[in-house]
Amino acid sequence: MFVKNKMYLASKSPRRNELLRGMGFDFEVMPTNVKEAYPADLSPAEVAEYLSALKLSTIDFQQFPKGSLFIACDTIVVVGDEILGKPKDADDAYRMLRLLSGREHEVISGLTVMTEAKKLTRHRTTKVKFRELSDEEIHYYIENYKPFDKAGAYGVQEWIGYVGIEYIDGSYYNVMGLPTQLLWQMLSEV
Amino acid sequence: MFVKNKMYLASKSPRRNELLRGMGFDFEVMPTNVKEAYPADLSPAEVAEYLSALKLSTIDFQQFPKGSLFIACDTIVVVGDEILGKPKDADDAYRMLRLLSGREHEVISGLTVMTEAKKLTRHRTTKVKFRELSDEEIHYYIENYKPFDKAGAYGVQEWIGYVGIEYIDGSYYNVMGLPTQLLWQMLSEV
Repeated sequence: MFVKNKMYLASKSPRRNELLRGMGFDFEVMPTNVKEAYPADLSPAEVAEYLSALKLSTIDFQQFPKGSLFIACDTIVVVGDEILGKPKDADDAYRMLRLLSGREHEVISGLTVMTEAKKLTRHRTTKVKFRELSDEEIHYYIENYKPFDKAGAYGVQEWIGYVGIEYIDGSYYNVMGLPTQLLWQMLSEV
Repeated sequence: MFVKNKMYLASKSPRRNELLRGMGFDFEVMPTNVKEAYPADLSPAEVAEYLSALKLSTIDFQQFPKGSLFIACDTIVVVGDEILGKPKDADDAYRMLRLLSGREHEVISGLTVMTEAKKLTRHRTTKVKFRELSDEEIHYYIENYKPFDKAGAYGVQEWIGYVGIEYIDGSYYNVMGLPTQLLWQMLSEV
């Protein structure tokens, strides 16, 4: 409802797909093939915005119906000065969760909405606090949930999110991978 | 994992069931038959705690295996001085959502965990802010999602939550109906 354009989501993430469906939209998933590199002098928020825009940088409008609308999103986890991407293996996942344990971190999603006529890029930041996690809990989570496709090595909608997160300050759906309310607002502007 | 007692949940809510399963527990659902009335002089947090304890007040331990553990939860929505329960009909749902539109409210869950030897009751409060909702949006939501079984007439995990919530300050799962991290903590104490 409320959007009539043909819509494309540049993400294969099942979580983003589910959220966009939950918003009531019909859309198609469109794979992208960009290397996720970014200039070294960007702030974390700029990195998230840059990467979301990058995912739509190779769109050839001729190949899509007139009036098509494209959405891309990139989510990063920032703790102290470090940007956490996806963990390489179980040891790397352990390192990340140990780093996140007992302190607050930021989840930043960059979001780009684009038509042939207009392009908007913004970001949203959410603060998340894990309580102290025991080694037993961290190992249990990694072994059973294998969070290797997730920035920061955790899924907020999984066991570790249920039992380990003390509070979230901001958008829950941002932490899940798509700032839905920001997207709604940007769609109303495009 | 981590809990060996036989576990019973005094709630038929599919959302609470899903969250408790997500925490990795095996449990049985146990219907309760108490009238949800409370003394008039209680604060909202006391009301939520009182109602959660009330749901376990008729347990006969003789009828359950030794060492059984019981969980009950009650979630209320508080806006200004008013406690919002479940809406009576579509008009009442409209009134509630119009009241929640454009302002912050509180979601309070009272949680009781009980064994034959011990009983704990606590609550958790989460702040939720809706942006201004249009009449069109409110009517669309009520017609399509029929939120008549939900305190405050909305489900955070439904369309209105995706597009209308500006921020959540605290536990998302509390708003969904079960403060999972508080429960985890209380289980470790029982």
